[in-house]
Amino acid sequence: MKCSLDCIPCLVRQSLMVTRMVTSDEAIQEKVLRETLSYASNLNLRQAPLLSQWIYRQVRKYTGQDDPYLQIKRESNRMAWELYPKWKEIILKSDAPLVNAVRMAIAGNIIDYGVNAILNTSDIPSILEKSYHSPLMGDIGEFLSALANAKDILYLADNAGELIFDRLFIELLNPEHITVVVKAGPAINDALMEDAQAAGLTELCQVIDNGNDGPGTLLDYCSPEFVERFKKADMVIAKGQANYETLEGYPRPIYFLLKVKCPLVGNHIGSGVGSLVVNKNTFTASEAENQRVPAETVIQYNNPNQKG
Amino acid sequence: MKCSLDCIPCLVRQSLMVTRMVTSDEAIQEKVLRETLSYASNLNLRQAPLLSQWIYRQVRKYTGQDDPYLQIKRESNRMAWELYPKWKEIILKSDAPLVNAVRMAIAGNIIDYGVNAILNTSDIPSILEKSYHSPLMGDIGEFLSALANAKDILYLADNAGELIFDRLFIELLNPEHITVVVKAGPAINDALMEDAQAAGLTELCQVIDNGNDGPGTLLDYCSPEFVERFKKADMVIAKGQANYETLEGYPRPIYFLLKVKCPLVGNHIGSGVGSLVVNKNTFTASEAENQRVPAETVIQYNNPNQKG
Repeated sequence: MKCSLDCIPCLVRQSLMVTRMVTSDEAIQEKVLRETLSYASNLNLRQAPLLSQWIYRQVRKYTGQDDPYLQIKRESNRMAWELYPKWKEIILKSDAPLVNAVRMAIAGNIIDYGVNAILNTSDIPSILEKSYHSPLMGDIGEFLSALANAKDILYLADNAGELIFDRLFIELLNPEHITVVVKAGPAINDALMEDAQAAGLTELCQVIDNGNDGPGTLLDYCSPEFVERFKKADMVIAKGQANYETLEGYPRPIYFLLKVKCPLVGNHIGSGVGSLVVNKNTFTASEAENQRVPAETVIQYNNPNQKG
Repeated sequence: MKCSLDCIPCLVRQSLMVTRMVTSDEAIQEKVLRETLSYASNLNLRQAPLLSQWIYRQVRKYTGQDDPYLQIKRESNRMAWELYPKWKEIILKSDAPLVNAVRMAIAGNIIDYGVNAILNTSDIPSILEKSYHSPLMGDIGEFLSALANAKDILYLADNAGELIFDRLFIELLNPEHITVVVKAGPAINDALMEDAQAAGLTELCQVIDNGNDGPGTLLDYCSPEFVERFKKADMVIAKGQANYETLEGYPRPIYFLLKVKCPLVGNHIGSGVGSLVVNKNTFTASEAENQRVPAETVIQYNNPNQKG
C-alpha cells in the first residue's frame, strides 16, 4: 500500500506517545521527537512503516530499554490465556466454528499498542467482546477454500496476546501445514518467539522469525531464509494493518486478516474503521515495484540476548 | 504559556491540512510537510507559535499565494455581517447586554482556520449559535470593572469575521478608549487592516497593526511602535488561543478572551475544551523570562502591496 502523507503526522504523534509510555523523562521525549522529525524530513514519506521501525529503535536507544513493551506483552499473554477457555467454548459451540475462529483471530487484533498507545490491558476483555461483534467483511468463502487446499501455510503473526486468539483458529487446522512467523526483535508489542512459546504454539506447529524488528513485513529487511519461505509457501496469511501496509502490493497471493484501525487503510481496502476484514491482495507488476522499499540502509536486527 | 511537546505533532498535521486547502498539488504538499519536519527538528519545541508562523510562510512561498485565506476571510466577513443584525438584537434585548456582548465576542472565536482547517463558512451560523450557549468561565466581574476604569484599551483581535462580533462588544464601549490591533501580514485567517475596514472598525475607533504576520502576538517579532503601545496601555484585551499561548506569561496585566479549542490550553487555563473564557494572566518574573522568544531570527513582515 502506498502510504499517504497523513501517515507522517500520525507517526510523529505516535513517537511522542510511545516515548512517554516508556519514560517520564521529558528530555528523552523531546530528543526522540526531534530525531523523528529530522529523520522523517529526509525519508521517502510514502514509506511510513520504515519511519515506524526507526521510531521504536530510537525509543530503545535513548531509554536504554531493548524491549519497552516486554511487560505489556507478558500481561497481554496472561490476559489472553484468561479469556481463552471462554472464547474457545463460544466458538466451538457456534454454528460455524471455523468462520468464528477466523473472526476471533481478527478481533484479537485490537491488542495493538502502535495505533492505540494508551490501551489498558484491563480493558482488553470488553474491547475484544465488542470487536468480535464487528462486521466481518471480505470473501471468507474463498479464504476457507484456499485454506482447505494448502499444505504449506505461512501465518504472519501480529501482536503478543493476539497470538493466543490466532491459536484458537490454528487449532482447527492441520498443525503440520502451518508455520507461524514472529518478529526477530522488539517492534512495538509485536509477538516474538517467547510470545509464541507463551501461546504454546511452538508445541503445536512450526514457528520461525522473519529476521527483522520492524512492524509489518519489510521484506528487504527480513532474513533471506524467511523471504525464501515467503515466496514458496502455498498460502500466506498476514495479520494486522502493518502487514497490509507493507505487503499488499507484493506479487503473490496473500490473505490479509485485519481489523481496520485507520481511515486511510479503510479507504484503501474498502471497509470502514472497526471492520474485521478478510482481504486477498490484488496487484500489478508496476504496483509491486512501487511497493519495494529500497534496501539503502538495511539493518538486520541483532538480538542482544542471542550469541552469534 | 510554555508549549507542550504535543503541540508539535498537531502543528505537523496542520501544515498538511493547510497546504491541502490551498493546493491539490501533492508535490507541494509533500514539500511543505518535509520542510516543516526539518524546521521543527531544529526549533525550540516549546515555541510552537513560531513553528505555526513558519508553516504559513512556507505555504505562501511554495504555493505562490501571499494570502491563501483571502477568499475565506472575505466570505467570513460577509457571513458575519449577515448574522450581525440578529445577534445585535438578541444582545441588546438581553438582561445583561455588556456581558452577553463579551460572550458573543468570545463565541465568534470559532471562526478559526488554524485549529479547524476544515471549517465550512456555511456551517458558521449553527456553530456560532452553539458556541454562544457554551459555559462562560472566569472572572467577568473583574474584567468589567477594569473595562469601566480604563481610558486606553488595546484590543488584540484574532480572526476575520470574528471581528464583526468583537464590534458588537466594542460598540457598547467608549470608542475613544479603544485601539484595535490587527496583524500586519497574512497569518492563517487572522484579521488584517482590510478586515478591520470591512468590519467598519476603522470608522468607529483607532485601528493599528502589530508589525508581524505570525499567529498570536510574538512580541519579539512585532514593530517597536506596537510593543510600546502594548507596554503602556491601561488595559490589554487579547482574543483567542494564539494570543494566550504567546502572551500569557508576560509581566503586565492582560485579559484573555478565548474559546478553549485544545485540551492543553484547557488544562493550563483550568477550563474544558469548548468553554468561553475570560482569563486574567498571572505571572512571575522567571516565567516571563521563559516566555521570551529569542529574537535570533527576527523577520519583519514586508507587505508586498505597500511601498516603502
